[in-house]
Amino acid sequence: MYAVTVPEFKRSLLALRAILEKAEGLVVEKKIEDSVLLQARLAPDQFPLVKQVQVACDNAKGTAGRLAGVELPKMEDNETTLKALKERIDKTIMFLDTLTMEQFEGSEEREIPIYFFPGKALSGLEYVNTLGLANFYFHVTTAYSILRHNGLNIGKTDFMGAVAFHDEKK
Amino acid sequence: MYAVTVPEFKRSLLALRAILEKAEGLVVEKKIEDSVLLQARLAPDQFPLVKQVQVACDNAKGTAGRLAGVELPKMEDNETTLKALKERIDKTIMFLDTLTMEQFEGSEEREIPIYFFPGKALSGLEYVNTLGLANFYFHVTTAYSILRHNGLNIGKTDFMGAVAFHDEKK
Repeated sequence: MYAVTVPEFKRSLLALRAILEKAEGLVVEKKIEDSVLLQARLAPDQFPLVKQVQVACDNAKGTAGRLAGVELPKMEDNETTLKALKERIDKTIMFLDTLTMEQFEGSEEREIPIYFFPGKALSGLEYVNTLGLANFYFHVTTAYSILRHNGLNIGKTDFMGAVAFHDEKK
Repeated sequence: MYAVTVPEFKRSLLALRAILEKAEGLVVEKKIEDSVLLQARLAPDQFPLVKQVQVACDNAKGTAGRLAGVELPKMEDNETTLKALKERIDKTIMFLDTLTMEQFEGSEEREIPIYFFPGKALSGLEYVNTLGLANFYFHVTTAYSILRHNGLNIGKTDFMGAVAFHDEKK
């Protein structure tokens, strides 16, 4: 349960951080304000970029933290710059780094109450597979898509981040 | 390994199928050709919708099939209508339904060669966590985003599909 969450969230959040850093270059190049990108969206009733990044961070924090059974650190949703969004990612990764493998033991069986659906629950395994990972990747991908749509020169490898391939055994 | 792949791919592909069905309504309402949506993209150098759906299907098929250690059924990339894309999803789900839990036993340790990176490999666990799920959700989310950007009235619940919440134990 630790392996399917903490290292993957970190890999993906670091990739998102690097994408936001590239976006800082776009802001300079196009002579625009950060807020143009932070408030960009793909549909009028969709969350803008700033919220996509905030929710991706909260999905990572909430999924890993609930499985580990620890209290979730509160974070204000007050970012107004790309730099502040990168710091939000840094704070989220610092929280993930406090979690230990031992805290996740048995969490696949543990009942996780669903905060947005009072009275309902999922097992830890269902929770991570169905809600945790899908929601997290949904918001990271949407943040990526908003920036790509706004002219940022990124591709799939930017989304994937660092994958630790090893040499094939013969 | 079965639980983190087959049922989640099915849930998400069925959600994507329902989204494509909604898109058939948009085609009628706007009096446009299916091809307008199938060729839509969010950036000039991005895969259009048709390819996003094809790759999402192939990610599900390839990830689950490689972990199960079975031969992957070939599928032609020749869809030109929303109906044909729904059938591609149906065929992919029919393949997923042939896989058994037993075939996945021990697959977390098994070495999976990376077809796009000759000579490199990942363990089954690394493969599913790092490449399989992230890539799959990336393409499903991008298909969703392309349609939402083109005026389809969809939201997060359309993306999530059917989640089997149970009543919280008191």
